[in-house]
Amino acid sequence: MEKTFALKGNIIYSRTMKQFAVCENGWLVCEDGICRGVFPELPEKYRGIPVTDYGDRLIIPGLTDLHVHAPQYTFRSVGLDSELIEWLNAHAFPEESRFADPEYAEKAYRIFLDDLLKSTTTRVVTFGTLHAESTFRLMELLEETGIRAYVGKVNMDRNCPPTLCEESAERSAADTEAWIRRCLDRHFENVRPILTPRFIPSCSDKLMELLSILRKRYDLPVQSHLSENPLEIEWVKQLCPGTRFYGDAYDRFGLFGGDGPAIMAHCVHCPDGEIDLMKERGVFVAHCPQSNTALASGIAPVRRYLDRGLKIGLGSDVAGGFTLSMFRMIVDAIQCSKLLWRLDADSPAPLSFEETFFLATVGGGSFFGKAGSFEPGYEFDAVVLDDTSLAHPQPFTVKERLERLVYLSDDRNVAAKYIAGRKVL
Amino acid sequence: MEKTFALKGNIIYSRTMKQFAVCENGWLVCEDGICRGVFPELPEKYRGIPVTDYGDRLIIPGLTDLHVHAPQYTFRSVGLDSELIEWLNAHAFPEESRFADPEYAEKAYRIFLDDLLKSTTTRVVTFGTLHAESTFRLMELLEETGIRAYVGKVNMDRNCPPTLCEESAERSAADTEAWIRRCLDRHFENVRPILTPRFIPSCSDKLMELLSILRKRYDLPVQSHLSENPLEIEWVKQLCPGTRFYGDAYDRFGLFGGDGPAIMAHCVHCPDGEIDLMKERGVFVAHCPQSNTALASGIAPVRRYLDRGLKIGLGSDVAGGFTLSMFRMIVDAIQCSKLLWRLDADSPAPLSFEETFFLATVGGGSFFGKAGSFEPGYEFDAVVLDDTSLAHPQPFTVKERLERLVYLSDDRNVAAKYIAGRKVL
Repeated sequence: MEKTFALKGNIIYSRTMKQFAVCENGWLVCEDGICRGVFPELPEKYRGIPVTDYGDRLIIPGLTDLHVHAPQYTFRSVGLDSELIEWLNAHAFPEESRFADPEYAEKAYRIFLDDLLKSTTTRVVTFGTLHAESTFRLMELLEETGIRAYVGKVNMDRNCPPTLCEESAERSAADTEAWIRRCLDRHFENVRPILTPRFIPSCSDKLMELLSILRKRYDLPVQSHLSENPLEIEWVKQLCPGTRFYGDAYDRFGLFGGDGPAIMAHCVHCPDGEIDLMKERGVFVAHCPQSNTALASGIAPVRRYLDRGLKIGLGSDVAGGFTLSMFRMIVDAIQCSKLLWRLDADSPAPLSFEETFFLATVGGGSFFGKAGSFEPGYEFDAVVLDDTSLAHPQPFTVKERLERLVYLSDDRNVAAKYIAGRKVL
Repeated sequence: MEKTFALKGNIIYSRTMKQFAVCENGWLVCEDGICRGVFPELPEKYRGIPVTDYGDRLIIPGLTDLHVHAPQYTFRSVGLDSELIEWLNAHAFPEESRFADPEYAEKAYRIFLDDLLKSTTTRVVTFGTLHAESTFRLMELLEETGIRAYVGKVNMDRNCPPTLCEESAERSAADTEAWIRRCLDRHFENVRPILTPRFIPSCSDKLMELLSILRKRYDLPVQSHLSENPLEIEWVKQLCPGTRFYGDAYDRFGLFGGDGPAIMAHCVHCPDGEIDLMKERGVFVAHCPQSNTALASGIAPVRRYLDRGLKIGLGSDVAGGFTLSMFRMIVDAIQCSKLLWRLDADSPAPLSFEETFFLATVGGGSFFGKAGSFEPGYEFDAVVLDDTSLAHPQPFTVKERLERLVYLSDDRNVAAKYIAGRKVL
């Protein structure tokens, strides 16, 4: 496939967290899957490469969903009437149990991927279920789409229903190692395995110990959940006496960043010490505003994390969240930050549109290396947006058109999508 | 047009605020524009009337948008980075100034109505602008759509920019009376005028006095804004010395319910005395969760209002809100109530799906008399929903299918719409 070409259109991306770079009727150059920059005129050296002219459409970097549960997709939005632990037992665990059947899994994962492909998302970090076979099937299906992904076979060996519980820590670790080897043998181009202890309440110390060995043996990144809900945090405190805070329960097994990258989803109620440790270990925060609202968990103090220099991206957390749209996550992140500012007297200024767009592109993308920007050297992820359906009688700037698309568009407005230089839509 | 017929499908509506009535593969009978009820089998007396079979689709009552600014629609979602007063001056007032030109107004209103027609909304209560001609044009366009509406020519004679300020209270009242007479002469079937003092900061005492006379002379309902933003409330206190609270500034002119119906939008920060007076006067609260979040106003304590027995409906408040979708307002009302519960220690339980669906149908609909239900005697407003695009491998009940549609659907899922017995889509 030809991975050297140029796109023409109204190009906009985050120059910094506070400012967009805009090039109207500009040229965006991709060379062998890597972005070579944005130009008002096509540079001499690229004359003759194939060009696709997207006219008056907008071209933006691809968005990253840093935290999603693919198997929960098809029951999204149903039964959002309880808090985390109750919801897991009533909805998430029963649905995930069905993924013991790889045929059911394939049916459900195809629905997830059909919608994901049509979205503005180019990269995802997703949980599977504890079932290695079904999770591997998800990876094979993802590989075909061209979407870049980290996928985790879930580990869980305690405090779960009998239909969704691994029989022992040893068995969980053995299944996980076999799955990792299978992934490595398969030589995926787009998909990578990620270690996925579900969360501390579901993982025995023994299991965490064994995962810690696997992490080092295969040099894998880690994803899990952190400080989402007050009742959960209290439970972790009881389960892990002697830990200073929730994150400590991962850190004592080397599963909290440091040597290898780690994503911790939610981080709604982190005490100061936990924030310090996240900073020290380079932990990525997956901010999931829609889910944190739907499960009444609260609002993560993102501005505070930004001020501390933490790494942050956005996550849909389907099915705590109910949509895969990362545009919607930008809106929800802004909306939540406004309510936190209003309702919590100590809270700093709300998040701006510029800041949240940065988090959804560069912020999450950086977990994949260089992704989410059109600066030279970044992997070429681009989404072409058509806003002609959003009629208006007054003029708008390119930035205002982007704002309208983020708040108002749906999959009909996604005209094309490129990932690492490959046109996938 | 034939207004006696039956629809067949999966019928669901609010039996009470806490419970849905569901009739799978049922019959919904309309006689001369009035609902005659829901039946598992078509009753003997209706045999032979025309039937439309919507198969496995859902049929729900129409939804009411109790507060929207039609002229603000086309700039929705742009520039939502400030609080109310600053936002009015920076965005809303400059845009509304353009409606001095009826041609511009017609162009913008057609965009508004195209989208409104495709939505689940069957009834709206909307602000126009201060311009009588443009506002009348909106009413004529609305009349054609079949959507039932109250429309207000806005009154504002102080604290506004020169481009959007009536030259005197007398002139404002005279223009308003001429507009009312024109409306009455026109004998609209679907559209009614409503008195619309913008809000206390924009209306002099003299103007309020004159509007009070018009209200009595033409027996008109009233719409305005109440206790939306803390800075606004403080301003009203300064502008109206001697009032006990914001609502008092309307009440002293008889524009706060009582003799005639009134809608007050927002009610985010009402003190106890104000709530008592709303109850006493039968004031409708238009709860606008999306707008109250976008302008960082706060979260209205809806559960508290429900417990007090206030009349409540939902409003999009475009362009403080950014979408006309009343389904989205249901979701936003639930989401906001969850955050209020989490962030405010004194706040009672969040709103349920059942309760908010009730508010969006029966709650708002009752401002129009009997609308928003399929109980016998209600005006026949029905929306037919097709959820086949929302693929899923597991079974769902009709209620769960409705929940998914409310959270996940867009205009593509609206298969048909009836208002007062007339098929409008």
